[in-house]
Amino acid sequence: MEQKVDNGKLVAYSKVEMNEQIMPNDTNPMGNLMGGYLMRWMDIACAICAARHSGNQVVTASVDHIAFHEPINLGDVITLNAKITRAFNTSMEIYVEVSAAEITGANPRQSNQAYFTFVALDAKTKRPTPVPPVIPITSEEKKQYEDALRRRELRLLLAGKLKAKNAAELKSLFDSFD
Amino acid sequence: MEQKVDNGKLVAYSKVEMNEQIMPNDTNPMGNLMGGYLMRWMDIACAICAARHSGNQVVTASVDHIAFHEPINLGDVITLNAKITRAFNTSMEIYVEVSAAEITGANPRQSNQAYFTFVALDAKTKRPTPVPPVIPITSEEKKQYEDALRRRELRLLLAGKLKAKNAAELKSLFDSFD
Amino acid sequence: MEQKVDNGKLVAYSKVEMNEQIMPNDTNPMGNLMGGYLMRWMDIACAICAARHSGNQVVTASVDHIAFHEPINLGDVITLNAKITRAFNTSMEIYVEVSAAEITGANPRQSNQAYFTFVALDAKTKRPTPVPPVIPITSEEKKQYEDALRRRELRLLLAGKLKAKNAAELKSLFDSFD
Amino acid sequence: MEQKVDNGKLVAYSKVEMNEQIMPNDTNPMGNLMGGYLMRWMDIACAICAARHSGNQVVTASVDHIAFHEPINLGDVITLNAKITRAFNTSMEIYVEVSAAEITGANPRQSNQAYFTFVALDAKTKRPTPVPPVIPITSEEKKQYEDALRRRELRLLLAGKLKAKNAAELKSLFDSFD
Amino acid sequence: MEQKVDNGKLVAYSKVEMNEQIMPNDTNPMGNLMGGYLMRWMDIACAICAARHSGNQVVTASVDHIAFHEPINLGDVITLNAKITRAFNTSMEIYVEVSAAEITGANPRQSNQAYFTFVALDAKTKRPTPVPPVIPITSEEKKQYEDALRRRELRLLLAGKLKAKNAAELKSLFDSFD
Amino acid sequence: MEQKVDNGKLVAYSKVEMNEQIMPNDTNPMGNLMGGYLMRWMDIACAICAARHSGNQVVTASVDHIAFHEPINLGDVITLNAKITRAFNTSMEIYVEVSAAEITGANPRQSNQAYFTFVALDAKTKRPTPVPPVIPITSEEKKQYEDALRRRELRLLLAGKLKAKNAAELKSLFDSFD
Repeated sequence: MEQKVDNGKLVAYSKVEMNEQIMPNDTNPMGNLMGGYLMRWMDIACAICAARHSGNQVVTASVDHIAFHEPINLGDVITLNAKITRAFNTSMEIYVEVSAAEITGANPRQSNQAYFTFVALDAKTKRPTPVPPVIPITSEEKKQYEDALRRRELRLLLAGKLKAKNAAELKSLFDSFD
Repeated sequence: MEQKVDNGKLVAYSKVEMNEQIMPNDTNPMGNLMGGYLMRWMDIACAICAARHSGNQVVTASVDHIAFHEPINLGDVITLNAKITRAFNTSMEIYVEVSAAEITGANPRQSNQAYFTFVALDAKTKRPTPVPPVIPITSEEKKQYEDALRRRELRLLLAGKLKAKNAAELKSLFDSFD
Repeated sequence: MEQKVDNGKLVAYSKVEMNEQIMPNDTNPMGNLMGGYLMRWMDIACAICAARHSGNQVVTASVDHIAFHEPINLGDVITLNAKITRAFNTSMEIYVEVSAAEITGANPRQSNQAYFTFVALDAKTKRPTPVPPVIPITSEEKKQYEDALRRRELRLLLAGKLKAKNAAELKSLFDSFD
Repeated sequence: MEQKVDNGKLVAYSKVEMNEQIMPNDTNPMGNLMGGYLMRWMDIACAICAARHSGNQVVTASVDHIAFHEPINLGDVITLNAKITRAFNTSMEIYVEVSAAEITGANPRQSNQAYFTFVALDAKTKRPTPVPPVIPITSEEKKQYEDALRRRELRLLLAGKLKAKNAAELKSLFDSFD
Repeated sequence: MEQKVDNGKLVAYSKVEMNEQIMPNDTNPMGNLMGGYLMRWMDIACAICAARHSGNQVVTASVDHIAFHEPINLGDVITLNAKITRAFNTSMEIYVEVSAAEITGANPRQSNQAYFTFVALDAKTKRPTPVPPVIPITSEEKKQYEDALRRRELRLLLAGKLKAKNAAELKSLFDSFD
Repeated sequence: MEQKVDNGKLVAYSKVEMNEQIMPNDTNPMGNLMGGYLMRWMDIACAICAARHSGNQVVTASVDHIAFHEPINLGDVITLNAKITRAFNTSMEIYVEVSAAEITGANPRQSNQAYFTFVALDAKTKRPTPVPPVIPITSEEKKQYEDALRRRELRLLLAGKLKAKNAAELKSLFDSFD
């Protein structure tokens, strides 16, 4: 099966699904999964996705705001789905969605989601190296591809690397809130 | 989406996919994944699958012969796919297939496979409890469903719970080797 | 030493310092600390800080954008300093700063920082419970206390719980970027 | 103490005993040792035994059918005894027996047993390398030595590397079931 | 086999042997087993021994001076042998000896040894509870039994619970050094 | 800030504080922190302290008598403070104090303390290498600096490397007990 299209790769080419059962050591004294452990799994799922797309080793560059809504309990199974949204020269934005359920499948619920950014490293120089473009196909993939520009502006703005007046895409995002 | 058919459940209903990256502590001093760590992951993937099908907690009853062919290296990603093949009163046979590749997806290869047997436990009594039948749909699912009888006879034979002369299905399996 | 002032508590009352050495299992195949492991430690340091301030068990509600700049190597020691910036009814914003150095202290460098939000839970009801106000003393504590309002507006905006036109504090933040 | 006899080694030379207490993270949400964790310990005990006999690093080649009978609880101590049964050119069959008891020694019980197969690797070439023969002394050692041939035939048969009509030893094993 | 003699128990009744392979996460960045990890295993081996002798749960009360002589490397196997030396009302002194070798058995060497003290707890009250006396049989067991009095005096002296002038046994120990 | 004084270093230069929350896997079946786990953390805190003072990698040479008084529970936070007391040619004595409290800060209590000895290793030769002297400033630091000689004599005596009649400092220590 040839997944590459022209110079780029399809979103489906690098999708990653992980299922993990919550063990005692992942929980706090109240018996719930600790937020930090969940972030560790999200990071690994996204890293595998980014490495597959780029064909190179990757390092986490940043993670956007994550909110934790539902408590996840000892013995529950969490399902993580990671997929690439867009590539920028040497970096990639990866979207990960987490859901949880009892091991029997009972009580299924959305847990949370996040956008991670990874940089691809050349195997020899350990320096950032270009990544192939993403080819969005579905309407959902296309929307995430488009919106990635705005999220990137917000990251640069928060990092002090972009002035607000130059954040054209972000401006439209904020307008859309009104 | 309603996955139950009559009294039984489809194989697809309880399928489980796991992806795991090999970390330093999973490897032996030669830098390869230890067989025992792989068996632990296979057991977890199969347990989640069995719990989903049965809708109950499950315990591992047995695992059939497992062979380890290819060394799996530090940093590789293994993919485990577990699915149910057949249910027997209170027990289920789960088939798990493992493949491995570098995190970039390079050097993909089949690693190994195994059949695990689980027993469903009632949440209150902690005693074995009946499980729904499996509804095989595809030709592969149907073949695994049929062959499950023979594998079960071999297990009972090895456990001394069945006499060879009564192992009708197994006899035909052995014939098929000739 | 009486740390409580009136109804509130000083920032110093709940400060937490952690030092951790990077062990093999914390690293990726390139020998660097994985971003996800770092987030786990940041979450624990902040949780201890929030629990001390509130006098109750806490759960992670959210974490703001985190950027990872410098690779941290096997054997390095990371130092995490967590302190509370402001309390909001039942939630608290905690700021954590991470630095890294070789175990000998050589090559010291700032690693990164983040804002976590925690909710205090009543020991019996497991429901959110009020937390004492924060009493900022130093000019740095006062600045973080003031800016906490803007960061909170951004969180609510990103969560779709606040309209941009009502984000008065955030608006001034964006103005300050120009 | 000289344990080598002629060209071979005694079974006693490489015997391994392990005792492990079941910790929280080894258990499932029902508080019982997970089958996969037990298999990991069995694999390590057998690997140490095989490395001692061969005088080389070893890798797991296969594990035969394992059945799990008795639940093992949090805080219990399991005792693993591994010993070699027979060597075949570059591979070795190791037998491991597991028993369990409360940490006080109360409630002792047989848990399960298994046969693992390991291949010895040359330290430089990482290729399979010959192993010394086993010298069985006791009647139990001699019986396990003899029966090893039949178990090996079953493994080759299951792996599709031997035709049933050529499995002479196995045929007698099956006859013995009648 | 009846191991109890009159009111007491033989040393052999509670002997514990553990074998553990050094995994990556047990080592420091120089690839050697960290002292702290070794102490953890020594504590577990001794705790199992003390629990077997007393027939009750136990807690560590103290550990005497431990010296670390030989570096133990990644992949080495350590062997721990723990045995009781003497019982005192509700406490027990356990002696543990550690040796190390490559997994092949090459380069065997004594590593270190230590005396741990444990207190037996009643299962219901969680309060200290009497333990059976130890019946020393061999000359080595008898010597350790006798010397246990002196070691106990040193512990009490170091803890400030005994005055030097009353440490009669210890005085003879010090004399024996001259 | 220049912490070095002449040829030596201040005690404050290498002080280490660690805070750790007790997780399920750190506890025994009674829900209390196991002594061995606590020793592992004490060893790491002291090793970081010794490496900072010496500017070199270090290995644990010995640990003096440790007593465990108070049970520490699942979910508690332990605080470890390690500081150097004195340097001897290529070795250093490190003092570590452990306290515990609930995560909220409630129920604070002294847990225990110990003296560890570390040897500094040259990065290239892996052989012991000289360490800078310690400059004690406070009266507490000066007392620990002075008493270090006596503790060292006791270690040498226990290791059979010093005769009792030559242990001049220790003699005065024993006198002080009267």
